[in-house]
Amino acid sequence: MRTERVRLFDASAPLVLASGERLTEVDVAYETYGELTPERDNAVMICHALTGDAHAAGWHPGDRRPGWWDTLIGPGKPLDTDRFFVVCANLLGGCQGTTGPASTDPATGQPYGLDFPLLQIADFVTVHRALLEHLRIPRLLGLVGGSLGGMQVLEWTLRHPEQVENAVIVAASSRLSAQNIGFSAVGREAIMRDPDFHDGQYSAAGATPATGLSIARMLAHITYLSEEAMATKFGRRIQDPEQTGPGFGVDFAVESYLRHQGDTFLTRFDALSYLYLTRAMDWFEPFSEHDPADVAAAGTRVLVVSFDSDWRFSTEHSRAIVRRLEAARVPVAFREISSPWGHDSFLLEVEPYHATVRAFLDRALDRSVPG
Amino acid sequence: MRTERVRLFDASAPLVLASGERLTEVDVAYETYGELTPERDNAVMICHALTGDAHAAGWHPGDRRPGWWDTLIGPGKPLDTDRFFVVCANLLGGCQGTTGPASTDPATGQPYGLDFPLLQIADFVTVHRALLEHLRIPRLLGLVGGSLGGMQVLEWTLRHPEQVENAVIVAASSRLSAQNIGFSAVGREAIMRDPDFHDGQYSAAGATPATGLSIARMLAHITYLSEEAMATKFGRRIQDPEQTGPGFGVDFAVESYLRHQGDTFLTRFDALSYLYLTRAMDWFEPFSEHDPADVAAAGTRVLVVSFDSDWRFSTEHSRAIVRRLEAARVPVAFREISSPWGHDSFLLEVEPYHATVRAFLDRALDRSVPG
Repeated sequence: MRTERVRLFDASAPLVLASGERLTEVDVAYETYGELTPERDNAVMICHALTGDAHAAGWHPGDRRPGWWDTLIGPGKPLDTDRFFVVCANLLGGCQGTTGPASTDPATGQPYGLDFPLLQIADFVTVHRALLEHLRIPRLLGLVGGSLGGMQVLEWTLRHPEQVENAVIVAASSRLSAQNIGFSAVGREAIMRDPDFHDGQYSAAGATPATGLSIARMLAHITYLSEEAMATKFGRRIQDPEQTGPGFGVDFAVESYLRHQGDTFLTRFDALSYLYLTRAMDWFEPFSEHDPADVAAAGTRVLVVSFDSDWRFSTEHSRAIVRRLEAARVPVAFREISSPWGHDSFLLEVEPYHATVRAFLDRALDRSVPG
Repeated sequence: MRTERVRLFDASAPLVLASGERLTEVDVAYETYGELTPERDNAVMICHALTGDAHAAGWHPGDRRPGWWDTLIGPGKPLDTDRFFVVCANLLGGCQGTTGPASTDPATGQPYGLDFPLLQIADFVTVHRALLEHLRIPRLLGLVGGSLGGMQVLEWTLRHPEQVENAVIVAASSRLSAQNIGFSAVGREAIMRDPDFHDGQYSAAGATPATGLSIARMLAHITYLSEEAMATKFGRRIQDPEQTGPGFGVDFAVESYLRHQGDTFLTRFDALSYLYLTRAMDWFEPFSEHDPADVAAAGTRVLVVSFDSDWRFSTEHSRAIVRRLEAARVPVAFREISSPWGHDSFLLEVEPYHATVRAFLDRALDRSVPG
C-alpha cells in the first residue's frame, strides 16, 4: 500500500499534451488496494481533488491520519477492496510524486517553474490512461472522483467512454462560474504577487511563497465549508476565553482554524501546482468538445452526486451535467444528498452518500459477472 | 458641498473610547447637503460602509463619479435634499479625512500604525455625536446606513434612542457569522503578512502593503456580489477573444474586473484602516449590551432592509435584528427587497428599495410637522 512511482513517458516516447506541447520525462505516483482478478475486470480508478494525492486509503508508516478517502475505500467499505482493485494516482502537474512544475526540467536541469506547459484536464486523463496501460488494465469497472476528480471522471467518460463501464461524479462541475473562477484567481494573485514567488523560480532562489499559498488555502477553505458548518463548528467562539476585546491576533476560533489550515498546507503542497491545477479547472468545458451520444453508445452508466449545502460547486453544477447526459440518453442517476458540511462533504462519511455510491458500485459488479 | 474638516477632540477634551483608551487629537471630515431648518429638526445623518467616506452625494471638482450614495441623496431623491439637511462624516479609524491609524500620533510625531487603539462601533457613534453637537443638531429626524453603516445606525439607536427619531438599517448585521469573520480574517492576514506592512509602520518605511490590500479587496469584492450578478456581468467571457487556451495572465473578464477593483482600491484606501474597521465589525454584538426596550420607550421608528441575493449579510442577519426589536415592541418595519446584485445592492438604484426608503422618510417628515 506504499506509493509506487513509475516513469510512463520519456524522450523516446514523450507525453504529447492537448495543447501540442511535449514533456519528455513523466513519472507517476500511484497506490493500489485490493487484488486484480485474473480476468482484470474489477479495477476502479480514483481521481483525486485539487490538493489530493495518490494516498487515498490505508495508513503509511508515520501517518497521523489515513489516506484522504479512507472512509470510502477499504474492506467492506463502499469501495470494497475485498472485491475491487482500486487504483489512485497523483495528477500530472501535482506535487506528490507525479511530474509537475516543481519537477526538474531535463532540458535545463533546473525546476520547470512557469516554463512547465499549461495543462488541461484532458492531459490528466492521458497520463492516467498510460498508467492503466502499464498496469495492463484495459477497461475500468469504475471511475470515481470528487470535485476536480469528478471533473476528470467526466472528461475521461466523454473522451473514452469505451474504457469506463461505470462513472461516479461527485460535487463536480462541467463549467466553472464567474464566482468560482474569481475565488481561484484571488488565490493565484496572492501566490504570484508574493515577493518569494520569484517568477516561479522560488526553489532555485531558496524561497517559497508561503504567504501567498497559505492565503490562497485559507480563502479556498472558507468556500469548501457551508456557512452553517462554520457556524456549528466555530460560531463566534473567542479563541482565548480570557480575551475580552478586539486585537489583531487570533481573536476568534474560526481564525485559528483557518490559520492552521493555511500553515499545514505549506508542508504538503506546492504553489506552482496550485496555479496549474486551478487554471485547468477554470478552462474546463467538456461539453463544448465532446458529444455525450458516444457515452450512450458505449453503454457507460453514470452516477452524479451533489450536496445541498455545497455552494462552491452547487447542485446546479451537477444538474447541468445530468441534463447534458440525459439529453443524449446516457443512463445517468442523480442524487442530491442532504449534508450540512458544504463542498467538503465529498470527503466525509455522510451515510446516504456512501450508501448511494455503494449501491451503484454493487450493481456495477453484479452486471459485470457473466451470468 | 466640499468636504469640511473640524477638530472635535483635543488634549483639553480628549476622546475617551469604549475601551477606556484616549485620543487627544481627533479631526472629522464631513459633508452636508440641503438646508437645516431654523427649528433644526430636519437633519438626517448618513453612516457609510467599510470603504465609504464623507462624500456621499454630488460632484467635487475633478470627480469621475459622484458621491457614493448619490442615487439616494439629492433634490427629489428618496433622501430629498430640498427637505432634509443631510450630514455624512468619515468614520473614526478611517482614512478619508477623519483621524485614523495612518494619522500622526501627537505624542510621537509619527503615524500611529498599530499603536492606534482598537476601536468599537460605539466609538464611531461617539465621534459622530460630537460632530452633531458641533453642528448644533440635538436630534436626528433620520439616521440611515448600509452594511457597516447600518451596524453603526443600530448601535446608535440602541445606545441613544432619544436622539434618533427614525432609523434605517440596510444590509447590516448585529452579529457576524463565522464565515463573515473568516473572509475578513483572510483579508487581514494578506495585509499583515505583506512584507511591505512593516508592522504597520509602512509609511515611515516609504512603503505600502499594496499586494495585501488589493488581495483583501478582490476577495471582499467577490462576497459583495451575488453569484448570479457575476454570471450576468462576466460569465465565462474570455478577456482577450484572441486567447484560445489557458495562461497565467488575465484570461477571464472576471479576473480583469477583480484586478481592477484591487488596483483602484489602493489609490483611495489605507491598509491600517481596513484592519481597524473590519475588526470592529467582527466584535460587534450590540444586543448583548443594550436593552431594545429603551428604543421602544423613546418612540424611535426603525426600518430594516435586506436584499434576497445578499449572501455576505443575508436576510437572516436582518431578520435577527428585527426579531430582537419586535420582541421589545419597537415599531419596526422590515422589507426583503428582491435584487440580483447581492450585498452591493444597497449602493445601487434598486427601485423598490429606494421607494421603501422614500416612503419611510416621507412619513418621518409628516410626523415631525406639528399638527
